[in-house]
Amino acid sequence: MKIKIGILGATGYTGAELLRLLVNHGGVEISWLTSEKFSGKTISQVFPHLSGFLDIECKSVRKLGELQNVDLVFSCLPHVTSMHFVKKMLDTGARVIDFSSDFRFSDIKIYEKWFKSKHKYRNYLKNAVYGLAEINKEAIINAQLVANPGCYATSVILGTAPMVKEGLLMPDSIVADIKSGLSGAGRAPDLEHHFSEANESINIDSVSGHNQKPEMEQELSKLGNSNIHITFIPHQASFDRGILATIYSSLNKRVTANKIHDIYAKFYSNSCFVRISELGNLPGTKNVRYSNMCDIGIGFQDDIFVSVAAIDNLGKGASGQAIQNMNLMFDFPETQGLTSTAIYP
Amino acid sequence: MKIKIGILGATGYTGAELLRLLVNHGGVEISWLTSEKFSGKTISQVFPHLSGFLDIECKSVRKLGELQNVDLVFSCLPHVTSMHFVKKMLDTGARVIDFSSDFRFSDIKIYEKWFKSKHKYRNYLKNAVYGLAEINKEAIINAQLVANPGCYATSVILGTAPMVKEGLLMPDSIVADIKSGLSGAGRAPDLEHHFSEANESINIDSVSGHNQKPEMEQELSKLGNSNIHITFIPHQASFDRGILATIYSSLNKRVTANKIHDIYAKFYSNSCFVRISELGNLPGTKNVRYSNMCDIGIGFQDDIFVSVAAIDNLGKGASGQAIQNMNLMFDFPETQGLTSTAIYP
Amino acid sequence: MKIKIGILGATGYTGAELLRLLVNHGGVEISWLTSEKFSGKTISQVFPHLSGFLDIECKSVRKLGELQNVDLVFSCLPHVTSMHFVKKMLDTGARVIDFSSDFRFSDIKIYEKWFKSKHKYRNYLKNAVYGLAEINKEAIINAQLVANPGCYATSVILGTAPMVKEGLLMPDSIVADIKSGLSGAGRAPDLEHHFSEANESINIDSVSGHNQKPEMEQELSKLGNSNIHITFIPHQASFDRGILATIYSSLNKRVTANKIHDIYAKFYSNSCFVRISELGNLPGTKNVRYSNMCDIGIGFQDDIFVSVAAIDNLGKGASGQAIQNMNLMFDFPETQGLTSTAIYP
Amino acid sequence: MKIKIGILGATGYTGAELLRLLVNHGGVEISWLTSEKFSGKTISQVFPHLSGFLDIECKSVRKLGELQNVDLVFSCLPHVTSMHFVKKMLDTGARVIDFSSDFRFSDIKIYEKWFKSKHKYRNYLKNAVYGLAEINKEAIINAQLVANPGCYATSVILGTAPMVKEGLLMPDSIVADIKSGLSGAGRAPDLEHHFSEANESINIDSVSGHNQKPEMEQELSKLGNSNIHITFIPHQASFDRGILATIYSSLNKRVTANKIHDIYAKFYSNSCFVRISELGNLPGTKNVRYSNMCDIGIGFQDDIFVSVAAIDNLGKGASGQAIQNMNLMFDFPETQGLTSTAIYP
Repeated sequence: MKIKIGILGATGYTGAELLRLLVNHGGVEISWLTSEKFSGKTISQVFPHLSGFLDIECKSVRKLGELQNVDLVFSCLPHVTSMHFVKKMLDTGARVIDFSSDFRFSDIKIYEKWFKSKHKYRNYLKNAVYGLAEINKEAIINAQLVANPGCYATSVILGTAPMVKEGLLMPDSIVADIKSGLSGAGRAPDLEHHFSEANESINIDSVSGHNQKPEMEQELSKLGNSNIHITFIPHQASFDRGILATIYSSLNKRVTANKIHDIYAKFYSNSCFVRISELGNLPGTKNVRYSNMCDIGIGFQDDIFVSVAAIDNLGKGASGQAIQNMNLMFDFPETQGLTSTAIYP
Repeated sequence: MKIKIGILGATGYTGAELLRLLVNHGGVEISWLTSEKFSGKTISQVFPHLSGFLDIECKSVRKLGELQNVDLVFSCLPHVTSMHFVKKMLDTGARVIDFSSDFRFSDIKIYEKWFKSKHKYRNYLKNAVYGLAEINKEAIINAQLVANPGCYATSVILGTAPMVKEGLLMPDSIVADIKSGLSGAGRAPDLEHHFSEANESINIDSVSGHNQKPEMEQELSKLGNSNIHITFIPHQASFDRGILATIYSSLNKRVTANKIHDIYAKFYSNSCFVRISELGNLPGTKNVRYSNMCDIGIGFQDDIFVSVAAIDNLGKGASGQAIQNMNLMFDFPETQGLTSTAIYP
Repeated sequence: MKIKIGILGATGYTGAELLRLLVNHGGVEISWLTSEKFSGKTISQVFPHLSGFLDIECKSVRKLGELQNVDLVFSCLPHVTSMHFVKKMLDTGARVIDFSSDFRFSDIKIYEKWFKSKHKYRNYLKNAVYGLAEINKEAIINAQLVANPGCYATSVILGTAPMVKEGLLMPDSIVADIKSGLSGAGRAPDLEHHFSEANESINIDSVSGHNQKPEMEQELSKLGNSNIHITFIPHQASFDRGILATIYSSLNKRVTANKIHDIYAKFYSNSCFVRISELGNLPGTKNVRYSNMCDIGIGFQDDIFVSVAAIDNLGKGASGQAIQNMNLMFDFPETQGLTSTAIYP
Repeated sequence: MKIKIGILGATGYTGAELLRLLVNHGGVEISWLTSEKFSGKTISQVFPHLSGFLDIECKSVRKLGELQNVDLVFSCLPHVTSMHFVKKMLDTGARVIDFSSDFRFSDIKIYEKWFKSKHKYRNYLKNAVYGLAEINKEAIINAQLVANPGCYATSVILGTAPMVKEGLLMPDSIVADIKSGLSGAGRAPDLEHHFSEANESINIDSVSGHNQKPEMEQELSKLGNSNIHITFIPHQASFDRGILATIYSSLNKRVTANKIHDIYAKFYSNSCFVRISELGNLPGTKNVRYSNMCDIGIGFQDDIFVSVAAIDNLGKGASGQAIQNMNLMFDFPETQGLTSTAIYP
């Protein structure tokens, strides 16, 4: 029997990617989806590539009460807005995977500082599980509420976790320079992402800190049982999909690249979506586009340890990861619906 | 039980797309694949995105004799070269889907004129089936040798077939202006397709005629039982995937757009990969990328009838179509392994 | 002494290109420029690439009355809006180059049909000169009001003018299939031109006719002294700059390609911005990007004559052409400020 | 009177950019240019965008002896090869600007280590001047041989020089993460830069060190009179032109962002091609493409100082900078031929 799915905010890019993956999953049935901008239209009018695959109507969230109870809700709503609807859905008995930052932080003060908003659902927050299966699988399986990780955070945590776990990195030394494709900026038209403004370029919004920085620091600090500090700057480059994280750090003792390669291989030995590059090879976004894979390569420049992680920002960085979490929560094989390779060429 | 597959010339772009689709098909097992340039390497060394999905070694065609007999061979070898290996494979009892032009022409003189080469296998040619399922399904099901259509020809034939079948087009009036992505140019590096030479541009190689012109003319002439002539120019634009064919023609009697829309809808009513756009909408390549779909829209400018067909040049234009043919030949559901929507965004 | 310039609507893409060219012209001084969206900001805040080159403040058109009288006004305002301000500027004694369609049509009924608006300035229209120097140089030199041609019209007229002038084309046979870069869609953000919607694709808005079709027909009909009809469809492809027009037509008598090449060469012998490709070569947008050049190539496919014209939509298709017209009107050398080659690579 | 110019290796991308700039310079005459691959062809056959601008024939370097003596030679030959021809040209009395690394290093051992080749012209090396006008103007004016800086080195040196000069950076703390467009990879076709391999992606060749690292270290160490160490990784992203250097470092005492902004502004007060962004703004490659400008922005993330420098890799990173050096050497205004703004959009 198929599980019943509802999607909140389905007509942005994370929603689109979720739908692309769900229509081929085989174990689910999409009961309803909401969109404020496009309510009343069918989803295939909004996304013509879905024509013939999925044709249900977009509903307004204002009609949530009239919608059928479902087994699982994905919330693709924005930060701060999402929490209210997540709460409502949990109260219907549904399990929820939330794409926003609203339930990612154990420390409510950090959330409130970075998002400049009050968090109203402290009790729900307490039971939320950070949805990065590679470090948190058991908790996800049993979670009622999964906070799906941010795309930048996913790449940096996966790129450093084995070293942090072993306590090998100087906790203040980590610099994560991230390059992201433009689908990460979302689907709402603005001048900055108008084609001829954004095309053929790379730029940087701010150097002073991004709200996924405390997310990385929280998860790595837990994992390493120490106080990890990250310097993190995201860049936007003119391609659609992909994140490349180049992470520089200092080791607190000498370890060879070979030994480190073993540490990564072992750490991820049960992770079906992580591939460790052979020494000398480094990952690129090309090999993970539109897939749920994370490719990681490592090396040294003089004494500086460098790890490089490549993911698709909407795949392992968002909707692919959400499906992976769903699979764990509902006892599907972890890879169901995620067996496609990256597209190429 | 899975059918056994061999692939000749697997390390170009049609081979890569075939592999991407086959590893998720579920009904096949890839027994061997050949590559002259990369023989001795594993396929995942050649295509790192396949790492973890497929890791067999590339063989040289010179060792064909040592390879296991298979149920089906895909030949992705170039025109003129392909025919020799297709013949060899047929002689082992395998069925063959050939991507080259070598077995597409009923009239050997047309082949020899356009390809400036002798055709050595007249008897095999006679039994070859042109692999466009939308007009030729029964023959494909029973074929031992399927000539997989050219990408340009696929778009033009699908874009005009219903009208030609009804005899509604002036047979000398058809102009097909095609825009193709650059993956259509193949994987061999050359100056013309070096990134900074090809990027941010559209150009045109020749106006004087392309070898898929007689292919379109042959199939449409058969279908319309008249002598169809096509003026056809392909353009290359700086994106990876997709073909948009804009086809201008004159009608030999007045028919309304609504009536024509019905003609198309009826003609393709059993075609799972063709979508007819509502009147007023026109297709773009975006909605078919990396899928096996063909989107068709129609309209008029004054008295000129315009049909627009969009496909992915490596999908419905090559490897997707080849899988569709395989499904028909081996009694799989026609859509097996081809159920993915276009990628987006 | 430098001529004084005013620019209406300077913060769109035609305005930006005009400014890029004018700051290096040497014979002009920009007295003022207007922008409704950015009034109060300096132009280098709007266009940071101009920082250090031009730093004057954007004014609102509502303050036109307070602005200094100038020798020449460029109006980059939209169709229908532009005419009112053009009229006001003419009344101050300024000469005007108008980028909109408002003064391009001799027949006011054609304008009113295509733009669905009343034209209020019939007397001004009568004296307007169509600003395509290659066919209209003398009139431009003496014009008070120049209607700067549309980008599509420029490419099709230049691509066919020599043949039309000689009366060699069947007047109903012309099909102009145009591919344009996305800067042609303007600078106002919308979903269709949001980066990840528009990137990696080619599409088509409508087949039923575009408002530059009557513009082409008017000018070619005048030139050929006959009633020319054009079938014209524009496409948008995912690159920034460039137009490639592929124009198919039937000849009304046999003429060799060599002879036609001579006809083109002779027709453009005094045109400093038109280059005729050698027979066998065809133009691409790459060789004209960000320049004022128009490259034209010709050939045959069977009996169909094909001419191909490449321009930059904002160069010869808009702002470059406007500078060329200014040069003619104010007795500068025709190429002043337009001597840059296309950018490459 | 115009100075006479010769160009060695003119048909790569640095040669192409040099030609694009020189044909509009006004003070020079190109006497000859060489190309091994295209000798015998005219330069406009090689680069059709130059058609009508420059049409001289490409010569083989083997005929150097027959070529006219010139005032200035640009060598765009590859590392290790270049030195031999530079030496020959110097011996004719010409002044030389060399694009290769061959004369950039004061310490011949560093050169020989990084380029794994013997350096044969120690005496010439001694007199070579590192051609970064912003730190070395006087020496360039009088130089017979200028070693034109590397593109990566230019961005990192310009991005950090004011701080290094003031001794404010911890000398071991600098991490320079560079993102470059693909024209930086040169014009020789290879699989890695074949359009559909390189498009829509970002990747990284190696983390272990690049030959422009010692170049940065040498110049910054001189400037800061201390031993500067740089961790530097270049990335290639799928756009044509531009370099963005994100440079992370630790200060050795507290200084405010405002104060640092003043330091940069003062350091570059006589530099016509450097623009310092207002605090809060960061540069992007878009505003410098195809120009000789370098945009620099600064800020902090917690205690980490971040400076960001944007240049065009072929502009200020290569050929634009070479023209700037030529202007200084031959007493032209420093900006002559370099007055164009960045292209936009």
